[in-house]
Amino acid sequence: MDAIRPLPEYLVKRYHGWKATTFAENKSWYRRLAEEGQRPRAMVISCCDSRVHVTSIFGADQGEFFIHRNIANLVPPYEPDGAQHGTSAAIEYAVTALKVSHLIVLGHSGCGGVQGCYDMCEGKAPALEETSSFVGRWMDLLRPGYERLEAGEDAERLRALEKQAVLVSLENLMSFPFVKAACDEGMLKLHGLWTHIGEGGLETWDPEARDFTPV
Amino acid sequence: MDAIRPLPEYLVKRYHGWKATTFAENKSWYRRLAEEGQRPRAMVISCCDSRVHVTSIFGADQGEFFIHRNIANLVPPYEPDGAQHGTSAAIEYAVTALKVSHLIVLGHSGCGGVQGCYDMCEGKAPALEETSSFVGRWMDLLRPGYERLEAGEDAERLRALEKQAVLVSLENLMSFPFVKAACDEGMLKLHGLWTHIGEGGLETWDPEARDFTPV
Amino acid sequence: MDAIRPLPEYLVKRYHGWKATTFAENKSWYRRLAEEGQRPRAMVISCCDSRVHVTSIFGADQGEFFIHRNIANLVPPYEPDGAQHGTSAAIEYAVTALKVSHLIVLGHSGCGGVQGCYDMCEGKAPALEETSSFVGRWMDLLRPGYERLEAGEDAERLRALEKQAVLVSLENLMSFPFVKAACDEGMLKLHGLWTHIGEGGLETWDPEARDFTPV
Amino acid sequence: MDAIRPLPEYLVKRYHGWKATTFAENKSWYRRLAEEGQRPRAMVISCCDSRVHVTSIFGADQGEFFIHRNIANLVPPYEPDGAQHGTSAAIEYAVTALKVSHLIVLGHSGCGGVQGCYDMCEGKAPALEETSSFVGRWMDLLRPGYERLEAGEDAERLRALEKQAVLVSLENLMSFPFVKAACDEGMLKLHGLWTHIGEGGLETWDPEARDFTPV
Repeated sequence: MDAIRPLPEYLVKRYHGWKATTFAENKSWYRRLAEEGQRPRAMVISCCDSRVHVTSIFGADQGEFFIHRNIANLVPPYEPDGAQHGTSAAIEYAVTALKVSHLIVLGHSGCGGVQGCYDMCEGKAPALEETSSFVGRWMDLLRPGYERLEAGEDAERLRALEKQAVLVSLENLMSFPFVKAACDEGMLKLHGLWTHIGEGGLETWDPEARDFTPV
Repeated sequence: MDAIRPLPEYLVKRYHGWKATTFAENKSWYRRLAEEGQRPRAMVISCCDSRVHVTSIFGADQGEFFIHRNIANLVPPYEPDGAQHGTSAAIEYAVTALKVSHLIVLGHSGCGGVQGCYDMCEGKAPALEETSSFVGRWMDLLRPGYERLEAGEDAERLRALEKQAVLVSLENLMSFPFVKAACDEGMLKLHGLWTHIGEGGLETWDPEARDFTPV
Repeated sequence: MDAIRPLPEYLVKRYHGWKATTFAENKSWYRRLAEEGQRPRAMVISCCDSRVHVTSIFGADQGEFFIHRNIANLVPPYEPDGAQHGTSAAIEYAVTALKVSHLIVLGHSGCGGVQGCYDMCEGKAPALEETSSFVGRWMDLLRPGYERLEAGEDAERLRALEKQAVLVSLENLMSFPFVKAACDEGMLKLHGLWTHIGEGGLETWDPEARDFTPV
Repeated sequence: MDAIRPLPEYLVKRYHGWKATTFAENKSWYRRLAEEGQRPRAMVISCCDSRVHVTSIFGADQGEFFIHRNIANLVPPYEPDGAQHGTSAAIEYAVTALKVSHLIVLGHSGCGGVQGCYDMCEGKAPALEETSSFVGRWMDLLRPGYERLEAGEDAERLRALEKQAVLVSLENLMSFPFVKAACDEGMLKLHGLWTHIGEGGLETWDPEARDFTPV
């Protein structure tokens, strides 16, 4: 495995800087977290996109959020078929082992995965339709959201699809028996968010208004 | 969907604080990131564990790392079977669309997923062996790492298995044709890291020493 | 041009070392930077002084900062007279072509250029007052800063003049229409810093306190 | 001056990291540099481009190089007209006050300033020809280099012009009486370099071969 190399020097330097400052100043908390284990209040499902930092937006520190990040913050439906479902495993662990109180799905503007899904559903991205396309098959999860889009301008429909990525995930979450049970017992709340990267906006799904509204 | 609720007030407050400070100070950069798209130098695959923050360790800011987080920072083998593989989709997007230069797998001490795998392989966690256990099936990915463990104390073997989670992932990464091709062309380097949460330690896989060594 | 010679051997050796290590480890990122062009988040204006390394202080790597360095980190006022203004050209390129989000002026302790300006303004450096003195004429840019110094000890006044070099530059920056426009649109923030070389200190201009305060 | 703001938090954190590590480990050297002043062996004139780091290429540390950076690493001709010449001031200070032994001009591939000059000379960049264009007027310095280009493909001519930026600067350097005198006394050597960013290449001007040759 020739391609495996030591860490680039600039990251090594930054790490040593962190160790000597942030770590040194919070050592006792990190030790407790190590000894007693994590006890996060919430799980967040957000996108891998380098521009989306949920810990920054919420001023969170070590130990606060259990975070799963995948392309387009998607949750698949409940399928206990014995296959490998990384997202479902993360949700199961958060809800049944860690017993988080909140489960937040965070979508965002300018999502490359959602764009790919939109193009694919419009018939403009044949490469994504191939069996061998992991991104294409993953984005199939969002097809039910595409089906619900109203007619309109591409830009508007794309924005709507970004928000559907949150709604479809919330719906799929409720198909997991352990999620539903925790919700029914009042032990778990779900939250749907969408952030506008360029404007720093944050909208939350309001189940009464049946729309996303600014936080 | 009764269980879907507006965001808890403490997060709303923190968000407004972030918007008025961090966002306000960096607005122009966030706008550029929104308009021009992301161009992260590296992809990081790390655990969902709330105690592992790669952006903190490396003093990284918005736009630097494309981050996928799953239970135990695992990468499955290449399986273009048309099923939904979230981790593989994230890797495909990072390597073929974003063309990242570095792919970092970051393991950590006290990993609950690795502990579960160890218990399961030792025959002490029957619940994880059930077909319906998402965590169990996901952790099956690490079984090849368990097979390689040397005899010894449980604590040592568990620590070794945490590091195997990094190595197995690196090996599986190389099974993806587009990862291998990018490595062969010199466009991509892989890096294996393991961090000790309580001590703030960081070790990197040294391919010559064939071991993890402190950074 | 007899005086033009091949590179000294010690630098040739160091270059080959860099090529075999740092370059080899980061080749793919350098290639991307070459193919896609730079996208620095910030421009830094600092002194030529060999003791001032902004990339070191900020753990920055290739591609992060667009850096102009001149004697005493000075920015002249906006003068679109068709003459050659190297500093103004660098600022114009950074703001209008690269659209940087931050413009940082970094002053420092023990600045030889500032010392020359101080001596000249005190009437103790006649050589710098001659028309033919490039350093003297360049340091004329800082005379408005000298005029504002309060009475006191030479050492204190000299230190204050180093900080004036940052403030005068910030003021002159705002005389450039394209800088002002970018600031007004919220696309650009200015930052004034001063570093103490011997103590590794860093102070930032706090517009509310109207003073430099430790970072 | 509303647009002047405190430093972004991510740079504050990185600075504190540097202070606690690199600075702490080298404190005695930085103190000596502060107390005894700088004594650089060489001056480097390089481009502002964020991808060009002469200290990285040459493994240099605090105190080694006196560095002036401007657009396209240009040196204007000697013009002691009492106007403000930042580049000439930096050269004067390095040669007459610091008495550096080497003066290195470092050009590079993919230079935006050289590209602008080329487009302007080809009549394809009218905006750069306006009196008010600082970049255009600054790049006028390279027009003599453009005049010498041989006919050929644009890409080849552009590459040749990048190297002319080094040669024109070396020629202009020799028009400074104090540079010529130091060279004549054997106290100063000039060096012309050009680096290929994507390939990590370094070429040096060989006065005998009258060409750039790999180092």
